[in-house]
Amino acid sequence: MRKLRTVKPEIRILGVDDGFFVPHQPGKCTIIGVVFRGGYWLEGIMRTQVEVDGLDATDKISEMIARSQHRKQLRVVMLDGITFAGFNVVDVSELSEMVGLPVIAITRERPNLEDIRTALENLPFTERRWKAIADREQLFEVTGHRKTRIFMQTAGLEPNTAREIVIKTSTRSNIPEPLRVAHLIASGLTVPLNE
Amino acid sequence: MRKLRTVKPEIRILGVDDGFFVPHQPGKCTIIGVVFRGGYWLEGIMRTQVEVDGLDATDKISEMIARSQHRKQLRVVMLDGITFAGFNVVDVSELSEMVGLPVIAITRERPNLEDIRTALENLPFTERRWKAIADREQLFEVTGHRKTRIFMQTAGLEPNTAREIVIKTSTRSNIPEPLRVAHLIASGLTVPLNE
Repeated sequence: MRKLRTVKPEIRILGVDDGFFVPHQPGKCTIIGVVFRGGYWLEGIMRTQVEVDGLDATDKISEMIARSQHRKQLRVVMLDGITFAGFNVVDVSELSEMVGLPVIAITRERPNLEDIRTALENLPFTERRWKAIADREQLFEVTGHRKTRIFMQTAGLEPNTAREIVIKTSTRSNIPEPLRVAHLIASGLTVPLNE
Repeated sequence: MRKLRTVKPEIRILGVDDGFFVPHQPGKCTIIGVVFRGGYWLEGIMRTQVEVDGLDATDKISEMIARSQHRKQLRVVMLDGITFAGFNVVDVSELSEMVGLPVIAITRERPNLEDIRTALENLPFTERRWKAIADREQLFEVTGHRKTRIFMQTAGLEPNTAREIVIKTSTRSNIPEPLRVAHLIASGLTVPLNE
């Protein structure tokens, strides 16, 4: 993995979020990746699908990145949390190794581990999911604009570098632009058409 | 219709483009609308579907805007050309009246009317489509950054105001940001998944 030493203002980041899905029902959920230049502008889009409450998120996101024409330009992957499509958990360290890029997963609220553990008890492969979620020594806090706090879990880069990237790219809100835009696109495009 | 007198740098514009479709085959094509602040940032997404080579683009785009939560904030609609999903022609004047907003349709190349006329001869409702396309007294040229030219057809606003909007919002390329981003999203999200 190429080491990330300096954070250029226009660094290419992939922001990843999930779209609409019906909770607790077997089915697919669309995952959107947006290629963003720092906190500024959109350069590309990619997508994949994962199983609701499945175990394929790490693999599917890794494949999506690997087959993208943007792969070589990307420097960082940002995830909106580490659970997609319900409890399809991304193993941040494994994803980072698979794609050869640093990964930063961000949440607005400190995850409630007890609630998560209870929810996982109802799903198959409880321990496997728990292992990725409970890797809590890596949970860092970032204080952004107007004293707002977010939490991040990182792999493949120094926490201070990750913090710098989060702060530099939060140009329009408390959330880094790659994630704000990934969320807008993923949620806006996957709600059913009301015709 | 509210008259647009000044062009604020962060004016809310809807950029509209179409996604992937198989030409000349009956089917649906996704249309994406992106709510953009001037030439700067994305604020929302909407979508609809139209028939390939159909006649419903004006109605469907109008309905998409009317039912959007962003309707009241929008000041201008920008279209990537006036033909969507093949030859599903948008009547720019009709759309402008239906949604009560100015409309600017933009093309990178001067349309070749002879080629279009020939193509239309093979489709039903030839004259109806032709009427919207051939309304050529409204075709204006805009010289943008680095002397690049684009062409626009407008309704509901002064050509000089339209020109100002086009130039002010072309912050990242020769194309206004609302259309550059609508194109990226529409084309990136509607190509079939290669799984």
